[in-house]
Amino acid sequence: MTEPEPRVLPEATLTRLTQYLRALNAFEAQGTERTSSGVLAKEAGVNPAILRKDLSLLGSYGTRGVGYVVTELAEHINRTLGLTRDWRVAILGAGNLGRALSGYAGFASRGFQVRAILDTSASIIGSDVGDLVVEPISTLGEVIGREQINIAVLAVPGEAAQELIYALAAHGVNSVLSFAPRPLRIPAGMIVRRVDLSTELQILAYHAVQS
Amino acid sequence: MTEPEPRVLPEATLTRLTQYLRALNAFEAQGTERTSSGVLAKEAGVNPAILRKDLSLLGSYGTRGVGYVVTELAEHINRTLGLTRDWRVAILGAGNLGRALSGYAGFASRGFQVRAILDTSASIIGSDVGDLVVEPISTLGEVIGREQINIAVLAVPGEAAQELIYALAAHGVNSVLSFAPRPLRIPAGMIVRRVDLSTELQILAYHAVQS
Repeated sequence: MTEPEPRVLPEATLTRLTQYLRALNAFEAQGTERTSSGVLAKEAGVNPAILRKDLSLLGSYGTRGVGYVVTELAEHINRTLGLTRDWRVAILGAGNLGRALSGYAGFASRGFQVRAILDTSASIIGSDVGDLVVEPISTLGEVIGREQINIAVLAVPGEAAQELIYALAAHGVNSVLSFAPRPLRIPAGMIVRRVDLSTELQILAYHAVQS
Repeated sequence: MTEPEPRVLPEATLTRLTQYLRALNAFEAQGTERTSSGVLAKEAGVNPAILRKDLSLLGSYGTRGVGYVVTELAEHINRTLGLTRDWRVAILGAGNLGRALSGYAGFASRGFQVRAILDTSASIIGSDVGDLVVEPISTLGEVIGREQINIAVLAVPGEAAQELIYALAAHGVNSVLSFAPRPLRIPAGMIVRRVDLSTELQILAYHAVQS
């Protein structure tokens, strides 16, 4: 009997799945065909029992004495995470952060194509960022249509972010990763993940004091 | 009877504490003196029952009908997170990401002072980044001593990261935030938090497919 696949996986499981995927991709690059839960767990930096439980949530149990076929398991995790879809990213804000994100090698290697970068500043519009040219944010709707953007990354100051959220929703882009350092009002049907880099430093400080 | 304070708070609680703190800081800036768990939970985007449980872990229960004193609760969370200590940050890598991080307003406002930025590239060394001048990574030990650095941020390509981890450990810097896109071997006694920005996009993709 197969366990039913849960409707929504817990956040911690999702994060670990991305770690397993990264490890599996490294194995694929090395030409490794099979792996065990122990080896994979070590490479991903996760407890083997937790790894086995996570993969069983996906319905992937491996085979006793044989383990997991690397490409099959990677494919299975890719499908679970929705990464077999084509994700086309627009970066809003072409300051240092926007530029850093547009060149972030991890995006392309995981199937996220950065197709456009936009800014409001006349001194930046028209300049090159990697293979892209910075376009004016006033042409957001046009760029979304042309490039079939389905994910936006907000790399703008806090005060500019809220208006852009509404503009993205109006143009049908409902998945947003925000680096803006303030909470945003989120229109219904939109998914916004906030990355606050100072949270990471604060948690690091806590552990440093404990140790 | 007061519950004993737990030795190490769960990661999810720590993340929420940083959210409460941000909300409390906003209240302080507006001159708000008292708040309730309901109002604070709403501002922080967290379920009120979870907020009350988190704060009870800290021994902060508020007063029925009166709620929490904003400055006291902020101070209490600051102390819990170790933010009353002086944190002096060096950024290793002065590319777009390092530059973006050095100017990240959220760091300074939470008590993390970026005191130095270093790079290996001769074409970058000596150039200005905000109020700092890029110093050569070969002077890492000297810079750590001079600025009494106690947190390092790694904003370098994957291949350079491992060597720098060892160099930091050798110079007594044991708290590291790493943006390098690969797992690192961590010397004993060192705490490294990895930020992988593509993990965030992958989780976003998962939720977008579910919705």
